Amino acid sequence: MVIVMERNAKEEEIEAVIEKLTSNGFDIHRSTGVERTILGAVGAHVVDTRDYELMPGVREVHRVTSPYKLAARAFCPEGTVIEVNGVRIGSEEVAIMAGACTIKDYAECDAIARRLRKQGVRIIRGGAFKPRTSPYSFQGHGEAGLKALRQAADENGMAIISEVLEPHQIPLAEKYIDIVQIGARNMQNYGLLRELGQLKKPVLLKRGMSATVQDLLLAAEYIMSEGSHQVMLCERGIRTFETHTRNTMDISAIPVIHKLSHLPIIADPSHAIGIRDKVPPLARAAVAAGADGLLMEVHTDPEQALCDGAQTLYMEQFEKLMKELREIARAVGRVVPEAETVTA
Amino acid sequence: MVIVMERNAKEEEIEAVIEKLTSNGFDIHRSTGVERTILGAVGAHVVDTRDYELMPGVREVHRVTSPYKLAARAFCPEGTVIEVNGVRIGSEEVAIMAGACTIKDYAECDAIARRLRKQGVRIIRGGAFKPRTSPYSFQGHGEAGLKALRQAADENGMAIISEVLEPHQIPLAEKYIDIVQIGARNMQNYGLLRELGQLKKPVLLKRGMSATVQDLLLAAEYIMSEGSHQVMLCERGIRTFETHTRNTMDISAIPVIHKLSHLPIIADPSHAIGIRDKVPPLARAAVAAGADGLLMEVHTDPEQALCDGAQTLYMEQFEKLMKELREIARAVGRVVPEAETVTA
Amino acid sequence: MVIVMERNAKEEEIEAVIEKLTSNGFDIHRSTGVERTILGAVGAHVVDTRDYELMPGVREVHRVTSPYKLAARAFCPEGTVIEVNGVRIGSEEVAIMAGACTIKDYAECDAIARRLRKQGVRIIRGGAFKPRTSPYSFQGHGEAGLKALRQAADENGMAIISEVLEPHQIPLAEKYIDIVQIGARNMQNYGLLRELGQLKKPVLLKRGMSATVQDLLLAAEYIMSEGSHQVMLCERGIRTFETHTRNTMDISAIPVIHKLSHLPIIADPSHAIGIRDKVPPLARAAVAAGADGLLMEVHTDPEQALCDGAQTLYMEQFEKLMKELREIARAVGRVVPEAETVTA
Amino acid sequence: MVIVMERNAKEEEIEAVIEKLTSNGFDIHRSTGVERTILGAVGAHVVDTRDYELMPGVREVHRVTSPYKLAARAFCPEGTVIEVNGVRIGSEEVAIMAGACTIKDYAECDAIARRLRKQGVRIIRGGAFKPRTSPYSFQGHGEAGLKALRQAADENGMAIISEVLEPHQIPLAEKYIDIVQIGARNMQNYGLLRELGQLKKPVLLKRGMSATVQDLLLAAEYIMSEGSHQVMLCERGIRTFETHTRNTMDISAIPVIHKLSHLPIIADPSHAIGIRDKVPPLARAAVAAGADGLLMEVHTDPEQALCDGAQTLYMEQFEKLMKELREIARAVGRVVPEAETVTA
Repeated sequence: MVIVMERNAKEEEIEAVIEKLTSNGFDIHRSTGVERTILGAVGAHVVDTRDYELMPGVREVHRVTSPYKLAARAFCPEGTVIEVNGVRIGSEEVAIMAGACTIKDYAECDAIARRLRKQGVRIIRGGAFKPRTSPYSFQGHGEAGLKALRQAADENGMAIISEVLEPHQIPLAEKYIDIVQIGARNMQNYGLLRELGQLKKPVLLKRGMSATVQDLLLAAEYIMSEGSHQVMLCERGIRTFETHTRNTMDISAIPVIHKLSHLPIIADPSHAIGIRDKVPPLARAAVAAGADGLLMEVHTDPEQALCDGAQTLYMEQFEKLMKELREIARAVGRVVPEAETVTA
Repeated sequence: MVIVMERNAKEEEIEAVIEKLTSNGFDIHRSTGVERTILGAVGAHVVDTRDYELMPGVREVHRVTSPYKLAARAFCPEGTVIEVNGVRIGSEEVAIMAGACTIKDYAECDAIARRLRKQGVRIIRGGAFKPRTSPYSFQGHGEAGLKALRQAADENGMAIISEVLEPHQIPLAEKYIDIVQIGARNMQNYGLLRELGQLKKPVLLKRGMSATVQDLLLAAEYIMSEGSHQVMLCERGIRTFETHTRNTMDISAIPVIHKLSHLPIIADPSHAIGIRDKVPPLARAAVAAGADGLLMEVHTDPEQALCDGAQTLYMEQFEKLMKELREIARAVGRVVPEAETVTA
Repeated sequence: MVIVMERNAKEEEIEAVIEKLTSNGFDIHRSTGVERTILGAVGAHVVDTRDYELMPGVREVHRVTSPYKLAARAFCPEGTVIEVNGVRIGSEEVAIMAGACTIKDYAECDAIARRLRKQGVRIIRGGAFKPRTSPYSFQGHGEAGLKALRQAADENGMAIISEVLEPHQIPLAEKYIDIVQIGARNMQNYGLLRELGQLKKPVLLKRGMSATVQDLLLAAEYIMSEGSHQVMLCERGIRTFETHTRNTMDISAIPVIHKLSHLPIIADPSHAIGIRDKVPPLARAAVAAGADGLLMEVHTDPEQALCDGAQTLYMEQFEKLMKELREIARAVGRVVPEAETVTA
Repeated sequence: MVIVMERNAKEEEIEAVIEKLTSNGFDIHRSTGVERTILGAVGAHVVDTRDYELMPGVREVHRVTSPYKLAARAFCPEGTVIEVNGVRIGSEEVAIMAGACTIKDYAECDAIARRLRKQGVRIIRGGAFKPRTSPYSFQGHGEAGLKALRQAADENGMAIISEVLEPHQIPLAEKYIDIVQIGARNMQNYGLLRELGQLKKPVLLKRGMSATVQDLLLAAEYIMSEGSHQVMLCERGIRTFETHTRNTMDISAIPVIHKLSHLPIIADPSHAIGIRDKVPPLARAAVAAGADGLLMEVHTDPEQALCDGAQTLYMEQFEKLMKELREIARAVGRVVPEAETVTA
């Protein structure tokens, strides 16, 4: 912690700050300049910096130790790689996770899985529990949905990513889901984070709409502090004043997080932009910016999707996009899985 | 729903939209102007407007029915009044709820309650479960804390407002708490909202940091749709680009919500500004703007507070503030409770 | 400047930073802690902190000297008072400036001035040059408008506040205007600010829609560095994600600016909220929060106003509001001018 | 304009709205539904929608005609192409504009131009007038700078893009500059925009920090309404709550603007992110998202740059980036200029 005193701070004010620091267990380094005095305080204790800001003669207080430890790059400088169904998330491979927003039934899941598999996709998404802004909107098929998705995934050799909203759904996650998704609205639902930290399954943690990158890393810290280090982060757009898009995708978060943390960072262009025709440009941008993966809504028949059809890609759009992504990935030294070649 | 067609929309495009609307059960009113065609669609169905935005020839789609019903002003034009311990929240009385951020022990609760009571305060706040951004911060004393606060409240004739973070804490809320507080981070924790809606206790619902007023009203709708109509809303600051303050208190939300909804609106200046010396100006502003109540952190010894001491008022500041608030309330036709007069 | 090194920074990296600091003329204080090294650099030079952030081994750089000097509270601890037509802006008196958004003609100006004067208002507003978002909107009557307003002001014993958009309008300002207003869109039009700084007339500087408080103080510094110290600041709402209001009035800016700067701070509730029925609550809130003045749109016939009629108060609303403001001002130790008593 | 009446609006309220619309020259289409009445108003007049919002019985008013005409996609559906020095901005070619932030002298300009030219770059940037947040920062070399840049550009066969801050600098722009840049702070400096609209030189208009896409298009309309249609837009980051980056680059603005407008859209990753090491990921993302060009700060010796050295790329970084951009452009059906092959 660095405490900058006011230009005209009195000696007794400076000493009062030093005394408080000492009593809180800090080592102090005092720099007395011509203009002002600066106090460097070194110690392991977490304090509320405002307690010092309010002391007479204090101008500013800066915290200098990062409040997250396990999520910090320094904890694992080479970067975390999470392996799911043969996909090494965080490696040079760009992980592609795709599928319907909300699970309808087995037939739909199977049709989607089949087509995705041909594009080399090995992780399918699909929601069984939906957090809806309105209490009158459809809230998901629950366990029946998960069962259908599991069957389709197994038959097509795919892993599942799906969202969990409440602690009581965790046993279902344990049974059916390979990567547990935490949605933006739950990013700071700490009870849920802690319980998932004990589950020891990979977690994809979405950034909250008003969460800073630091907030996101602190939320990851909640999961990791319970022992589970298989956390991937997800940028899905933040809330700004712009109204032409549902959210504003913070593309810079990708290189920023790569610098600050060792955790893989995935982009969700579907939720970031909220409208189908602009998903491909954002998906391409994310890979070009260095994202470790993409989470996208794709459907064989978006008009019949139970939810968010408007932001769901047609399969043909997705196939075209995958082609572009393969080239872009190559340009930045990464790999997007190849489409399966038909063997007669 | 109003659908505005592009200037050069073709007749078959217009007809395709009309057909989709009809098949979705809407009555259509078509206005063919010189410049463009406008379709008014009337019906009870909730649809995703983006499904129409994506149709060829469509320029814009506007939803014209409010997505919330029970929380809308029209549902209770005269305004909801919630009575707790003789305080009529939503009436001409400005409800004052005050106390420590986090409960330490009985002695502290009692000391605070005693002083508050003298100022006419009849609702005491205190947290037993704390949602902390860092997993390494103190998380509250749980039931032991609630027990201590209950005892102090009972002895001083006060009601309790306290936060609940997770569904499994609801039985404790039922036992100890008079007004259940939902924090900003949980505003869209829909499972929790639904369960609280069944509890039939007054709820204070804080606005999320990135929630619009409409999001807040929809979250209230979640609680109300379970049958509990005793909901009060709370403005506690939103996230903006300004960094001199912890959050930006949206003072306009007070008159805006009064127009849109019948629910009482409370202001929390302590969390909005995050630093003690600027709490009184914001508290005064909120009452001047028409707030139905204030939620504030006050302590007999803020330096010894377990949490958020820096934004907690000294009792002397609070007493001075109450005096000012009484005059301001009078200026706007409201009443802040009088201090008890000492009878010898 | 405080430079925090990475935990594992090498000695040669630390020395490279010290060398660069020294060559830039800084005195250095080095604190070598167990965890990390902190360098305090004291000197008068303005540097780009990013130049240090990019050096190997550097974790963070904090600027500790305020980038504004003349606008800082320390420059004039007792607070600046600007006297215009007997109104002492920045004193205990709350300055009221009111009138039409845009000047129509003499008759309108006179009718408004007459009514305002009866309420004790001694500064009238009115725009001759209008910055309009659309090039097709009415842009103001220019000099003819100023002439009309001047005549009405003179006959009613009032001073004028009016906006200037471009440097070539300054001679007109010199001739007709008592307080020159800089609009939000021009807050960082530095050429204009510099020229106004040489004019030696009081300036009201509006906060830009995306300007932090620090940006606003730096803009004031531009004017002051030219020699003109009669600057008042104006909070008129910032841009946020909320869409129910035109802007979000940052009520906290009032106490924040009072702490950081000696310049008076005025609130403009009309532009902050943008709709008539919610102007009075915001005006009351601003005075309760300690604003040194209000700038408001008031008209004898808002329906006939040339511009922004929807956010313009009816004279009757204004008179009722003034009554409330007088009481609120009293509650916070301030004074709003009394209405003239009719002498028969 | 579409006016949605309240559910319980009285017939006389509806009629009052119709009367006002008629008197304002609108044709009205009335839709009387079971739930509520909707009025469609068709006409050419620009009105303040708030004037209708305030009428009794009115619930919401939606403007349905776009406030910009010349900047709208419909005005030039095939897209505008602006040709400068053989570069066709807005065509399949991705225009690259690069160079120092601020011009130092001829030697520097020449060194940079020489290296850029080898990469196929034909437009060089360099600032002679700098809009600085602090009045104490260096403000540019003015005409001397432009002269130096012009000489270097001419000798290397390059065109110049450079910023103009004030109307009185326009004659210099006419003499020395090929593309006139309007900075973010001047996006709503309407006087300047109008004068540039008469200059008939290509203009690059940067998006203001708090400008919506619509604000940006309206600012372009100011220039175009004076007769100059050679306008390109520039995304350079908006202001949000995130503090790890200088601004938040709104990558979605690229596809959004392509849909709404025919004007080319350029990205400025240097100012968007503000720190050198993260410029390449953003530059790649912009091209992948479909940007028509890039504006970047590049220097042969960033440490010696007069300004913003920290966000300026080393020439080697730029050359590596160009290689990546060429591949990414190909993936999205675009072309980035090839490097010159050395002919012995």
